[in-house]
Amino acid sequence: MTLADTSSPDTSGRRYVLTLGCPDRTGIVARISTFLADVGGWITEAAYHSDPDTGWFFTRQAVRADSVSTDVDDLRERFATAIADFGPDTVWRLTDSGVQKSVVLLVSKEGHCLTDLLGRADRGELPARVEAVVGNHRDLEGLTTRFGVPFHYVPFPAGDKQGAFEKVASIVDDLDPDAVVLARFMQIVPPQLCDRWAGKAINIHHSFLPSFVGARPYHQAFARGVKLIGATCHYVTADLDAGPIIEQDVSRIDHNDSVNDMVRQGRDIETLVLSRGLRWHLEDRVLVHGRKTVVFN
Amino acid sequence: MTLADTSSPDTSGRRYVLTLGCPDRTGIVARISTFLADVGGWITEAAYHSDPDTGWFFTRQAVRADSVSTDVDDLRERFATAIADFGPDTVWRLTDSGVQKSVVLLVSKEGHCLTDLLGRADRGELPARVEAVVGNHRDLEGLTTRFGVPFHYVPFPAGDKQGAFEKVASIVDDLDPDAVVLARFMQIVPPQLCDRWAGKAINIHHSFLPSFVGARPYHQAFARGVKLIGATCHYVTADLDAGPIIEQDVSRIDHNDSVNDMVRQGRDIETLVLSRGLRWHLEDRVLVHGRKTVVFN
Amino acid sequence: MTLADTSSPDTSGRRYVLTLGCPDRTGIVARISTFLADVGGWITEAAYHSDPDTGWFFTRQAVRADSVSTDVDDLRERFATAIADFGPDTVWRLTDSGVQKSVVLLVSKEGHCLTDLLGRADRGELPARVEAVVGNHRDLEGLTTRFGVPFHYVPFPAGDKQGAFEKVASIVDDLDPDAVVLARFMQIVPPQLCDRWAGKAINIHHSFLPSFVGARPYHQAFARGVKLIGATCHYVTADLDAGPIIEQDVSRIDHNDSVNDMVRQGRDIETLVLSRGLRWHLEDRVLVHGRKTVVFN
Amino acid sequence: MTLADTSSPDTSGRRYVLTLGCPDRTGIVARISTFLADVGGWITEAAYHSDPDTGWFFTRQAVRADSVSTDVDDLRERFATAIADFGPDTVWRLTDSGVQKSVVLLVSKEGHCLTDLLGRADRGELPARVEAVVGNHRDLEGLTTRFGVPFHYVPFPAGDKQGAFEKVASIVDDLDPDAVVLARFMQIVPPQLCDRWAGKAINIHHSFLPSFVGARPYHQAFARGVKLIGATCHYVTADLDAGPIIEQDVSRIDHNDSVNDMVRQGRDIETLVLSRGLRWHLEDRVLVHGRKTVVFN
Repeated sequence: MTLADTSSPDTSGRRYVLTLGCPDRTGIVARISTFLADVGGWITEAAYHSDPDTGWFFTRQAVRADSVSTDVDDLRERFATAIADFGPDTVWRLTDSGVQKSVVLLVSKEGHCLTDLLGRADRGELPARVEAVVGNHRDLEGLTTRFGVPFHYVPFPAGDKQGAFEKVASIVDDLDPDAVVLARFMQIVPPQLCDRWAGKAINIHHSFLPSFVGARPYHQAFARGVKLIGATCHYVTADLDAGPIIEQDVSRIDHNDSVNDMVRQGRDIETLVLSRGLRWHLEDRVLVHGRKTVVFN
Repeated sequence: MTLADTSSPDTSGRRYVLTLGCPDRTGIVARISTFLADVGGWITEAAYHSDPDTGWFFTRQAVRADSVSTDVDDLRERFATAIADFGPDTVWRLTDSGVQKSVVLLVSKEGHCLTDLLGRADRGELPARVEAVVGNHRDLEGLTTRFGVPFHYVPFPAGDKQGAFEKVASIVDDLDPDAVVLARFMQIVPPQLCDRWAGKAINIHHSFLPSFVGARPYHQAFARGVKLIGATCHYVTADLDAGPIIEQDVSRIDHNDSVNDMVRQGRDIETLVLSRGLRWHLEDRVLVHGRKTVVFN
Repeated sequence: MTLADTSSPDTSGRRYVLTLGCPDRTGIVARISTFLADVGGWITEAAYHSDPDTGWFFTRQAVRADSVSTDVDDLRERFATAIADFGPDTVWRLTDSGVQKSVVLLVSKEGHCLTDLLGRADRGELPARVEAVVGNHRDLEGLTTRFGVPFHYVPFPAGDKQGAFEKVASIVDDLDPDAVVLARFMQIVPPQLCDRWAGKAINIHHSFLPSFVGARPYHQAFARGVKLIGATCHYVTADLDAGPIIEQDVSRIDHNDSVNDMVRQGRDIETLVLSRGLRWHLEDRVLVHGRKTVVFN
Repeated sequence: MTLADTSSPDTSGRRYVLTLGCPDRTGIVARISTFLADVGGWITEAAYHSDPDTGWFFTRQAVRADSVSTDVDDLRERFATAIADFGPDTVWRLTDSGVQKSVVLLVSKEGHCLTDLLGRADRGELPARVEAVVGNHRDLEGLTTRFGVPFHYVPFPAGDKQGAFEKVASIVDDLDPDAVVLARFMQIVPPQLCDRWAGKAINIHHSFLPSFVGARPYHQAFARGVKLIGATCHYVTADLDAGPIIEQDVSRIDHNDSVNDMVRQGRDIETLVLSRGLRWHLEDRVLVHGRKTVVFN
């Protein structure tokens, strides 16, 4: 009931985003920042992390695209040269926020995460377009197409989950998205798909992992009598619910809350945690190293 | 990526909900609980509050409808007799959860609360149907009709806001909803409408009130350098942003967050806080007394 | 940097507190509230819980002692008569807040919980006196005696933990406290002591249980890469870290946080969670049923 | 009730910490990081912030002291030369974590923050020693001296607060501490002292500022019916409760909570918020710019 927030538009919104991980040593920051200074890069965000546990170094830098004197391909080439001696384990990416990303969502019957992500994409808040939704039930077809997004129905018969997953994989791989989001998709992804989608398949699990792995976590939480319930957004790996965690959050419950109340209240946490984790992934804020993530948010 | 939560359905979901506020004295609880026991009422929820500050007593009781030996009208009549001596200031209601409630949403251009509430209503999570949406811009018409809900466009010309509000009021009052929700409606409701809708007009304000009353609260928050931003769901009164508070929550920010970041992050808090406050209102969990609320959640 | 909060003293602070758990049925609330009304009881707090899962009913009622026409022993006798037909499983207590409670603290080397509890007791904020502190190291002796509390040093040689526990038990049982608090006591209580102290031995575990049971939970949390760390206050049972949970809370961490940072940050959560759980226990707000608690806070 | 967290000691704990703020432009990061690389600096923490609103740049870097080839004075001299052209508004510091810092605490009658800070200092958790405590009442003298810290009693007669403040200032200034902490000191610091202690006088205010400035904030919060209470740690300036905010947090309350309950519950938030804010200040994590802070935590 108040006047509008008319925020001034970010007229220089396009960014080149550099992420890098490598074994740590003296002089890395100097090398990277000197490189960026030499191409005229106006740094808008810079984050660093030295991990004493693994001896690795991680960074994410965002520079205004309009400040850089060359194009992104040339920039990549020059950067590769500049850090040629960082060692063979070095992992880096340089992305252009001017190139829109895409996601494919895998769903089942529960529509809360789907509604939220379609709504965010629809109002331009998700930094990606939703290319397609794949469902193992038809329940969410109407909701999806209502937002103008194609819906693919792929039934998962008990006897041929393997075949069903091949169909899903074929749809996903044709679209080659930047993220495959399991938005409360209730099927266990086979190991070979976990490998193929490594670092881009993202799941939302409805517990505060590592508590309550597997089926019916709210029932487990109810039985244990915990005082907070949670949700976890993580990369999918062949180990069930054990992939690198991107984001988690919790919500307070008490003895009055039935399993149904937890399910209802949990939906809000799942929705939030997934949307945050996915946004960070799409903005190249998440660097995976081993079983863990560095999140520059 | 886990198996389904197949929660057992609540087969006895219909409830009679009694709420009551009156000057406190010994024996009130005994009177009410004896009354409920006498009609066979199986109490599923019971909450009490004695306010030493005002000397008032408040209660909310939910009983299984199928446990009560009579119908709701007769129950109301008998209850009125049972508490006849509680004094003239006593306020009470007895509602039947089997009668679906309805809401009308007033919106402007920002769609996050609208998407959330339409989605919840659509999947049966909001204990009410959305009867209509009224917008002072056409921006959210497509989103609304997509969910099968009528959209009424009522322009608010600078010179005739009074006339515009009369049109809104006419639409709302024809529908006689249980709640009029200002879901980021950016117009100040005139005092006579505040009075007419007292106790059922609900606003979401995008700050942690009483901080940052009025226009552009995120800009105010940015300028002040606060470390948390918030949102407040409250009943609308003639005092701008000063009505009884139903629910509030906050979210952590830091020096990296621009006003735009706050606006984006704030949407998630606004959405959650409004949906919680509205649900509690619709479930008769909110009792207003003076400038404050008792929320039996 | 502001003037004082001179809160008016609660001149009628003495309360009789009734807690009760029994199989649920119609009429229980009426019976109890009628009983309280008949003795003139002015109810200041009343909380109820019907658990559809177990079919049990729980309540906690606080009445002003000065409103009741009889003494506490007579009240207990009358109440026993009033509810004689509630069944043999019924569990109830009626306590007098005018009788100060007592606690014994078991500690090791980490002083944060101890300092906090001694400080609270010292300024009258803990509703109990600290009768004694027992340590398996001398590290916290100085801190303890500084607050005028006796310290008992009981070494725990690797070869005779059994004997050491007998000494601890002898000290504790002589004092017969209302709570035995394991305030970061790093020894596993033997089953027979768990049984003897059932419902009054309270532990603080430095993780969000059931995650990270057992030794070095912060190391486990670091290895798993969780985004929140937590603490759990629970009753001690023979199942390690699996007793009924009284309270839990969490705190956000990120990739910058080393194990040492987690240990430091975790201390603040442990301290808070233990102090809240202990206060609720001492105020008879916690009812244990099976593996879970009902907390009327 | 678990085995010990035996965290490996940080054997290279000594750090040189550089903080700098200056008008932003391309190349600053390169200049600083090249400088640090040239002296062999092993960076353990590096944080940057470009503020598009003010056009300023801020950084904090921690390097292992044992990695640098020269001493801290020479390092300062060289650094001044290296950034000579950053402009006259540039503000920077280079501190040595091997030099212990000191604080003076100003208190009144409420001991919760004092107990907490003395306890932390006592167990080596506060990166400073508590040099002295000054109280305008004698209530906390016993607690203070118990921890071996000198207590100075300076009465504040209504007619001569000016004179009393001169005595306090004389005590403080003789000790020349790194922080003057108003740990629930209920006197308004005169403007000239605010100026003299600019950037090192830290207050804890018992509300979520800017709500409830001034006296009796919990009474104000109770009257307004907010659903969360908070606390704010901020630098003291001549504008009452309006100095740059370092840290804030909140805690949920409900209609059951009296003003006394809020006061009690609020103590825990005040304690935590002050201890966090003070630690960040002492670790040179807080950079003040205008009315706001950049906190590299």
